[in-house]
Amino acid sequence: MANTNVRLKLPFVCFAWQIAMIILFGVFVRYNNESDAHWVQNMAQNNITSAIENDFYYRYPSFQDVHVMIFVGFGFLMTFLKRYSFGGVGFNFLIAAFGIQWALLMQGWFHSLDPSTGKIYIGIENLINADFCVAGCLIAYGAVLGKVSPVQLMVMTLFGVTLYAVEEYIILNLLHAIDAGGSMIIHVFGGYYGLAISWVLYRPNLHQSKHLQGSVYHSDTFAMIGTLFLWMFWPSFNSATTYHGDGQHRAAINTYLCLTSCVLTTVAISSLSQKTGKLDMVHIQNSTLAGGVAMGTAAVFMVSPYGALIVGFCCGILSTMGYLYISPFLEKTLKIHDTCGIHNLHAMPGVIGGIVGAITAATASESVYGMQGTVFAQGGYQAAGMCVAMVFGIGGGAIVGEFLDKLQGLLTQPSW
Amino acid sequence: MANTNVRLKLPFVCFAWQIAMIILFGVFVRYNNESDAHWVQNMAQNNITSAIENDFYYRYPSFQDVHVMIFVGFGFLMTFLKRYSFGGVGFNFLIAAFGIQWALLMQGWFHSLDPSTGKIYIGIENLINADFCVAGCLIAYGAVLGKVSPVQLMVMTLFGVTLYAVEEYIILNLLHAIDAGGSMIIHVFGGYYGLAISWVLYRPNLHQSKHLQGSVYHSDTFAMIGTLFLWMFWPSFNSATTYHGDGQHRAAINTYLCLTSCVLTTVAISSLSQKTGKLDMVHIQNSTLAGGVAMGTAAVFMVSPYGALIVGFCCGILSTMGYLYISPFLEKTLKIHDTCGIHNLHAMPGVIGGIVGAITAATASESVYGMQGTVFAQGGYQAAGMCVAMVFGIGGGAIVGEFLDKLQGLLTQPSW
Amino acid sequence: MANTNVRLKLPFVCFAWQIAMIILFGVFVRYNNESDAHWVQNMAQNNITSAIENDFYYRYPSFQDVHVMIFVGFGFLMTFLKRYSFGGVGFNFLIAAFGIQWALLMQGWFHSLDPSTGKIYIGIENLINADFCVAGCLIAYGAVLGKVSPVQLMVMTLFGVTLYAVEEYIILNLLHAIDAGGSMIIHVFGGYYGLAISWVLYRPNLHQSKHLQGSVYHSDTFAMIGTLFLWMFWPSFNSATTYHGDGQHRAAINTYLCLTSCVLTTVAISSLSQKTGKLDMVHIQNSTLAGGVAMGTAAVFMVSPYGALIVGFCCGILSTMGYLYISPFLEKTLKIHDTCGIHNLHAMPGVIGGIVGAITAATASESVYGMQGTVFAQGGYQAAGMCVAMVFGIGGGAIVGEFLDKLQGLLTQPSW
Repeated sequence: MANTNVRLKLPFVCFAWQIAMIILFGVFVRYNNESDAHWVQNMAQNNITSAIENDFYYRYPSFQDVHVMIFVGFGFLMTFLKRYSFGGVGFNFLIAAFGIQWALLMQGWFHSLDPSTGKIYIGIENLINADFCVAGCLIAYGAVLGKVSPVQLMVMTLFGVTLYAVEEYIILNLLHAIDAGGSMIIHVFGGYYGLAISWVLYRPNLHQSKHLQGSVYHSDTFAMIGTLFLWMFWPSFNSATTYHGDGQHRAAINTYLCLTSCVLTTVAISSLSQKTGKLDMVHIQNSTLAGGVAMGTAAVFMVSPYGALIVGFCCGILSTMGYLYISPFLEKTLKIHDTCGIHNLHAMPGVIGGIVGAITAATASESVYGMQGTVFAQGGYQAAGMCVAMVFGIGGGAIVGEFLDKLQGLLTQPSW
Repeated sequence: MANTNVRLKLPFVCFAWQIAMIILFGVFVRYNNESDAHWVQNMAQNNITSAIENDFYYRYPSFQDVHVMIFVGFGFLMTFLKRYSFGGVGFNFLIAAFGIQWALLMQGWFHSLDPSTGKIYIGIENLINADFCVAGCLIAYGAVLGKVSPVQLMVMTLFGVTLYAVEEYIILNLLHAIDAGGSMIIHVFGGYYGLAISWVLYRPNLHQSKHLQGSVYHSDTFAMIGTLFLWMFWPSFNSATTYHGDGQHRAAINTYLCLTSCVLTTVAISSLSQKTGKLDMVHIQNSTLAGGVAMGTAAVFMVSPYGALIVGFCCGILSTMGYLYISPFLEKTLKIHDTCGIHNLHAMPGVIGGIVGAITAATASESVYGMQGTVFAQGGYQAAGMCVAMVFGIGGGAIVGEFLDKLQGLLTQPSW
Repeated sequence: MANTNVRLKLPFVCFAWQIAMIILFGVFVRYNNESDAHWVQNMAQNNITSAIENDFYYRYPSFQDVHVMIFVGFGFLMTFLKRYSFGGVGFNFLIAAFGIQWALLMQGWFHSLDPSTGKIYIGIENLINADFCVAGCLIAYGAVLGKVSPVQLMVMTLFGVTLYAVEEYIILNLLHAIDAGGSMIIHVFGGYYGLAISWVLYRPNLHQSKHLQGSVYHSDTFAMIGTLFLWMFWPSFNSATTYHGDGQHRAAINTYLCLTSCVLTTVAISSLSQKTGKLDMVHIQNSTLAGGVAMGTAAVFMVSPYGALIVGFCCGILSTMGYLYISPFLEKTLKIHDTCGIHNLHAMPGVIGGIVGAITAATASESVYGMQGTVFAQGGYQAAGMCVAMVFGIGGGAIVGEFLDKLQGLLTQPSW
C-alpha cells in the first residue's frame, strides 16, 4: 500500500512539474540578443566587430566549471555515507535538473523580463545564475540527506528556488548590495534554509539509524572527488558573473588564494583535535572549502592578496572548530541534525563572507577602484543584505519544514 | 599456445599501426594557418588585429570538455560491470587514442586536404572532429563490451572510423545536411554499427557468463562519474563545432535545457517501473543522457527553449522504456545482446534527433534566422542524411562483424 | 609521547608557515595591471578596445585544466595503494596548497618584481606558474609516498619550491632556454629531486611493509581518474604559458598527438611483458602519460605532427621498459625505492623532452618560424638548461634528504 504511494507520487510530481515547465517556458522564455540568430544584425548595430565579443566567450568556461561543481562537486561530496552514495549523487542530480528550470523562470521574471514583450530573454549568464540558485537548494539538501523522501526533496527545491529568487531580488536590486559569489544569497540562505527544515523534521529515533550513516574507506575517497572539484573550480564560481576584464580576473585570484590558506589551517586544527594526530577526513572534505564560501561577496573587491589569505586562514579554523564543537551542540541542545555539516561549510563561512564584504565596502576609497569602480561606501547595505538572506533562510525553512512534515505522513521513503 | 598468440598479436597490431600512422602523418599532415608559426603574417593579411581571434580561443574550452567526455565520460560509464571496470576504461582509452589518429587522416582527406599541395592542414577544429569520430566507435564498443578481444576492438575501430568519415562526407558535403552535434553521424551510425556487430557475434552460451556481468555498489558509483561528465559537458559537445557567436551560444543553451527535462522523465519512468518505487541505476546512468543525443542535429536551430524541453521530455521516456522493454526484446527475439544498452542511449535518441532536425529545418522560415541564417528548407536532405547514417551503421556493422567473427577463431580474449 | 609530537608538530608547521605567508604577501604581493581595478585606465593607455583582450581570457581555461591536473590528476594517481589512498590524495592537497603560496613569492621575486616599488604584481600567468612549480614537488612526493611524515613533506616542499625557482631563473632568464611545458624545469628537476631524497631515506626494512603497498581493484580504478585527467589536460599544461595565438594552438596540437601514440606503444610493451598477454594497470596508469612530459620543451616548436607522434612512440616504449627493468634495478642495485615509478614517468621522459628540444632548436631554420619567431639556433643553451635541472634535482635532493633524515628521529609518522 505504502509502496504504491511512493511508486505513484514521485513519477506524478516529475511528470506534472515538467509539463508545467514546458508550458511556462513556451509562454515566457526566448533566446536573448546574443544567443538569437539575429545576433549578426545586433552586432552591426552595436559596432561589435568580432564574434569573440559575444558574452558566451567571456563566461562559458566559468559556466562549465560551475556546472561541474553543482553536479559532480555537490553530488560526490554527498557520497561519503556508505549507504546513501546513490541517494547523494542521484537525488542531487534530480533536484538540480528540476531546480535549474524553475530558477530560469523565477530569476527571469525578476531580472530578465522585458516588460514591453512580457518575455524572459535568456543567455549564458542566466544559465550560470540558475546553477547558482540550485546550489542554495543543494546546500539545504546536505542538512537533511537520508532523512527525506524524493518528493519532499522536490517540494523543498520548488520553494527553495522561489524564496531564493525573491531574496536575491531584494538584496541585489532593492538594496544594491554586491554578492557576486553569493556568500549571502547562496550560502547563508541555503545553509539556514536547510538547518531550519532539519530542525522541524527532527525525530529522536533518528539516532537509531546512526549506524547506517558511517563512511567506509572508499566512500570517503569518492567524496574527495566532490571536494576537489569544488575546491579547484571555486575561483570560477566566484568570478563567473562578475564584470568583464579585471573583475573576473581579480575574483579568480582572490578565491584561489583564500582557498589555499584555508587548507593549511583546516589540517592544523584537524590534526590538533585527534589524540593520534591523524587527520579526520570529514574536515579535509569540507572545511577546506570554507574559504571559497567566505570570498563570495568580496571576491571582486580590492581586498588584496594578503587579505584573501587572512580570510582563508580564519575560515579554516572556524569551520573545523564547527565540526568539532558546534555540530554536536546543535544536535544535542537545539535538536538540529545536520548530516553533512552544512552549518560549518556554508552557513557560518557565508556569514563571515557577508561581514568581510560589508567591512571592505565600508572602508573602500574611491581611489582604489579608479575611474571605473563605483564608490563602495555601502557597508550598511551589505549588512542589510545579509540579514535578509538569514531571515529568508530561517523563516522560509521553518515554514517549508512544517509543510514537509505534513507530507511525511502521506509518503514513505525508498531507501534506494 | 593461445596465450602466445594473444601476447604477440596485440603488440604487433599496436606497433604496426602506430608506425603506419607516423608515416602517413609525415606524408600528409601539417599545421594549418592558425597553428603555424607564420600565423602573424597571416593575421596581417587578413586584417586580424588581435591574437584572441585565433579559432583556438573560440573552441579550445569546448574541445577540452569533449575530450573529457570521450575518455572519462565514455570510459567510466563502462565501469559499471564489476568484472570489466578495467576493460571498460582501459580499452576505451586504447581505441580512442588509436582512433583519433586515424580519424585525423580520414577526415582530413575528405575535408581539410589542399589539392594544390596534397597536404592536410590541421587545427583545433580537426581535433574536435577526430574526438567526435572516435565517439562513434566508442558507442559501438558499448554494445560488445566484454565480448571481444582487444585486437578485435582495434579492427572494429579502424573500420568504424573509415566508415564514419565516408558517411560524414556524404551527409555534410554531398547532402548539405546539418548535424553539428552528430545525432545522425555519430549516434545513429555508432549505435547501429555496434548493434549489427553484436548481432553477428551473438553466441547462445553468452548467457552462462551473465553472472560475471553484474554491477556492485561501488562500480555503479564509478559509472556515475562517467554519466555526470557526459551530462554536464554535452552542451560543449553540441556547440563545439557550430559557427562562432550566437551559433555556439544557442547550441549550448538548447542542449542544457533538453538534458534537464530528460532527467525528470527518466526518474519518473524508472520509479514507475519498479514495484518498490526505487530507482534503477542503469536508467539514471544512461537515459538521463538521451536528451543530449537527441539535440545533436537541431541544437543550433531556433528550436526555442520550450522546444528543447519537449525533446528532452520525450527522450527520457523513450530511452527508459527502451531499457525496460526494447533491450529484452532485442536479445530474446533478434538475438542482439547490447551490454550497455546503446540502442536506448544512442541509436534511438539519435533517430529522434534526426527527425527533430528534419522537422525543424523543414518548417523554419527565413525571418527567424535573419540575414545571416541560411534558409533551412531542407528537411528532406536531413531525412536523407539519417538514412545514410543508418545504412552505413547496419550494413557496415554486418560486414565488419563477419570479419571479426573470422578473427575470433584466431584469437583468444584476455579477461584483464 | 611520540604521538604528542606528531599532534603538535604538524599543526605548528601549518600555522607558523601560513602566518609567514600572510606577512610576506602583505609586504610584497599586489594585483598586476590586468587584475587591478585601474585596468580600464590601463586599457585606454594601451589602445585596448575590448575587455576580451585581458590575459585572463587567453589563459584561464588552460589554468583551470592545469589546476585539475595538480589536485585531481596527481592526487588520484597516488590513490592506487589501497592503504595510502587518503594519504595520496590528502597530503597531495596539503602540500600543493602550501606550495602554491610559496611559489607565488619565490617566482615573484625572480620574475615579477618591480624594482621601483619592491612589489610583486600577480595575474593569471603567475597562478599557472605557481601550479607548475608545485607540480615539481608533487612529482618528488611520488617517489617517497608512504615513507615520509606530513611535516617532512612540508619541509620537502618548502625547499623544493625554493630550488625550483632558482633553477627556473637560471634556465629561462640566464640561459634563455625555452621550456614552456617544463620537461626540464618541472619533470627532470622534480623527478631527480624525489629520487635523491628517496635514496637518502632508504631503509632495508622497507621491504617488510611491501604487503601494505599492494593495490586492489577499486584503488586501481580510482587511480585511472588521476591518469585520465592528467592525460586529457596535458595539452593545456604544455600550452598554458606559451605565447598567444599560434603558440598556444600548436603546443596543444603537438601534445595531443604525442600522447595518443604513447598509449599504443605502452599497451604493446605492457602486453608483451606478461606471459598471459594481460595488461599491467601500473603501465596503463603511468607510461601513457610519458608523451606529455616529453613534449614539454618542444611543444611550441614546429616539430610537425609526425614528429610529435614519433616522440610519443619512443616514450611509451621507454617508460614501460623503465617499469619492467629500470625500477627493479634502481631498487636492488642503487637502493632507490621509487613508490610511484616517477623515474619512468617524469625523470626519464623529461630528459628525452630536453634532448628533443635541444635538437629541434639546433636544427630550426628561420624560415620555418617566419617573421615572428626568434631564431632557435640555441640547442646548446637548451642542453645546458637540462644539465642545470638535473644538478639542482640530484644535488638539492641529496641535501634536503639528509635534512629530512635528521627530522625523522624527531617525528613519527601517522598512518592516516
